[in-house]
Amino acid sequence: MRMVDVIHNKRSGKELTEQEIQFFVDGVVSGDIPDYQISALLMAIYFQGMTEKEQSTLTMTMMTSGDHLDLSEIPGVKVDKHSTGGVGDKTSIPLAAVVAALGIPVPMISGRGLGHTGGTLDKLEAISGYRVEISEQDFIEQVKEDKLAIIGATGNIAPADKKIYALRDVTDTVDSIPLIASSIMSKKIASGADALVIDVKTGAGAFMKTLADSRELAEALVGIGKGVGMQCMALITDMNQPLGKAIGNALEIQESIELLKGNGPADLEKLIVVIGGYMAVMGNKATTVEQGQQLCEDVIHNGQALERFRAMIKDQGGDPRVIDDPEEILPQAKYRITLPAKTSGVVSKIVANEIGVASMLLGGGRQKANDKLDYAVGIMLNKKIGDSVEKGEPLLTIYSNRKKVDDIKSLLYGNIEIAKQAQKPKLIYETIGVEKQGV
Amino acid sequence: MRMVDVIHNKRSGKELTEQEIQFFVDGVVSGDIPDYQISALLMAIYFQGMTEKEQSTLTMTMMTSGDHLDLSEIPGVKVDKHSTGGVGDKTSIPLAAVVAALGIPVPMISGRGLGHTGGTLDKLEAISGYRVEISEQDFIEQVKEDKLAIIGATGNIAPADKKIYALRDVTDTVDSIPLIASSIMSKKIASGADALVIDVKTGAGAFMKTLADSRELAEALVGIGKGVGMQCMALITDMNQPLGKAIGNALEIQESIELLKGNGPADLEKLIVVIGGYMAVMGNKATTVEQGQQLCEDVIHNGQALERFRAMIKDQGGDPRVIDDPEEILPQAKYRITLPAKTSGVVSKIVANEIGVASMLLGGGRQKANDKLDYAVGIMLNKKIGDSVEKGEPLLTIYSNRKKVDDIKSLLYGNIEIAKQAQKPKLIYETIGVEKQGV
Repeated sequence: MRMVDVIHNKRSGKELTEQEIQFFVDGVVSGDIPDYQISALLMAIYFQGMTEKEQSTLTMTMMTSGDHLDLSEIPGVKVDKHSTGGVGDKTSIPLAAVVAALGIPVPMISGRGLGHTGGTLDKLEAISGYRVEISEQDFIEQVKEDKLAIIGATGNIAPADKKIYALRDVTDTVDSIPLIASSIMSKKIASGADALVIDVKTGAGAFMKTLADSRELAEALVGIGKGVGMQCMALITDMNQPLGKAIGNALEIQESIELLKGNGPADLEKLIVVIGGYMAVMGNKATTVEQGQQLCEDVIHNGQALERFRAMIKDQGGDPRVIDDPEEILPQAKYRITLPAKTSGVVSKIVANEIGVASMLLGGGRQKANDKLDYAVGIMLNKKIGDSVEKGEPLLTIYSNRKKVDDIKSLLYGNIEIAKQAQKPKLIYETIGVEKQGV
Repeated sequence: MRMVDVIHNKRSGKELTEQEIQFFVDGVVSGDIPDYQISALLMAIYFQGMTEKEQSTLTMTMMTSGDHLDLSEIPGVKVDKHSTGGVGDKTSIPLAAVVAALGIPVPMISGRGLGHTGGTLDKLEAISGYRVEISEQDFIEQVKEDKLAIIGATGNIAPADKKIYALRDVTDTVDSIPLIASSIMSKKIASGADALVIDVKTGAGAFMKTLADSRELAEALVGIGKGVGMQCMALITDMNQPLGKAIGNALEIQESIELLKGNGPADLEKLIVVIGGYMAVMGNKATTVEQGQQLCEDVIHNGQALERFRAMIKDQGGDPRVIDDPEEILPQAKYRITLPAKTSGVVSKIVANEIGVASMLLGGGRQKANDKLDYAVGIMLNKKIGDSVEKGEPLLTIYSNRKKVDDIKSLLYGNIEIAKQAQKPKLIYETIGVEKQGV
């Protein structure tokens, strides 16, 4: 088989065979296929797409190109959650604690942020001492004991995807639905969970800008998951404005803790309770989503979820005092600069990706994969879309370690609009793959 | 500027700016842009195409990436001819001699063959001693004296194209009209001729299989040429069956000599006279195409074109006795095996590319760029489409240096059809870019 013929078949719109996909993935891992042929195929896939069968084959082939976690030692239905990424999206952290508090094991393998989006691991590392790299056996032991662990990939998970992802980033083939779907699912299947909820973000701050694209991605993800016998569903949720009020690593940990104390922002709590409700059903702790939601609300308000979070932090080497005294333990920015509203009215737009870029420019995110992060910096929204505001009242606070933030201010002013009227946007658009009330 | 943004713009269907194209070509030549980004852009161009402006800019930028021949020392309008390549297409060789015999300088820079198509330089090298690599100054001197030289690229012509072409070959981005057009024209413009006729081959044995694609390519080529102030036109001519009767390097030289003695196959002579007629007008030796055609016929039949060819061979180190005694001087194959017709009727199909492949498999063509050639081997057609044939009568003769040619025979039988009736196919479909009678 020749790689140029594989490229030709995809370029001409043909369905690649299992043999062709296996040849490609093997050649990527072994290095026998040069980068320029890989990138040509990726661009051809961008334009020609992939059938459901091709996507499943690519996913499974990338998955089996590396290690596969065996979580069978952990009793119960292991439930995982993945977000396609957004701004202020710390959902996974408190959600994992909430679901663990229901007695459902949550073995979560997360990633880092790039560009305007944050990463779960980066946020957790804002907690002094927290280790995201722990051994597979320690991971399993911790999930058995705490019901909860959030770590980075262990071992050699989907090495083909690693190589392909790096090339996609520099060849503008990131936003291809079959490539996104197979990349996510190859890692998620390798991570060994039994059930998975995927939060597909949609809007300005998400990879998928339109509902149609988000639906296509959600269907691809769920199709692949169900195809391999995983319990799998997706929600399409809003990422036009940031989620919650905090953007920035330490600020988002603090907000997560506040949420688990029952004082979280309304949109974040709603999203956690809804996703948690589905996860409760998948994990056999509730028979209906409504019942699952009620259980989630309970563990948020009775402190049980907070205790799960504390246990995890402690077991992964972090300073558990952060739970009781977050401002003392988390790194703090030198300057807090408020951004006053220029007019009175109702906030009508907060462009999520640009708020993410502002946080990145303060040092809270990465422009390149090996940039160092400043955990303390970020943005704390005081107003969200639909909130009334008086001229001069702070729209948000900039947390900065540099004094001059004129660039950030002008970027933020350019991406927040105040109108006469505006409605709170929808938070959850639709669910994909939910077959019955009990998921 | 970042290459990933250039890829993004093209992938999204935008017109690339002059700055972006310059950045790309500079990066290709300097090596600053890695191959995987070049190939991603090429695949994006394959799918999104290029505007006329982008094609011209890419052509000129690739042209100025290397050396540019200055032919101003040679008096008169320098006229060149290019073919997009076919099977049995030796046209350039006798045509150049014919036009030179009219007193028009023909400084021709040609290429080699790959796959089923032959190359002018390979054919000329079948003549013992013929040197295709000569210095720029010797090239100019020879054209001044003989009006004629056919050589390979001197110096560093369009190095960006060289690199891009090599990548296109292995990433299945060869058959993109803007990439073909800019590749051809960057080299042709760098070669310094004032006027250019392009023979765009169409049909089974050509790059362009359909008349619509051929027309699009012809228009792109002529558009680029006229855009830089060159006299430029194209003809779309048939390549469903091989041109002439000889396929194979030495056999095609012999056929070229026969043609210049007035004994060439009818289709080849017709094509040469028609293209020569246009070149005569471009070179100011005729005022109408008909007059130009008459002049071409004259120099074919009075031996003047043959003398030009003899002079060129001599000046480029070849053995000029080949003119008088081709079978003595040209390498001869050990075996001549005829292929008898299996039924009586009229030849209705001779699939050009497969006949080209047969010649390649005998050793007459290259499967890979650095394959060595056997100049002696090839195929001599005895019948062409529209010719009557009796059962048992030879359809063609295989010239081989191996005794067993069962594979070749079965390939040939599979690609020649005999029917009850068949018409001679059209040779010349249309012309592009001819603005007035006088070209």
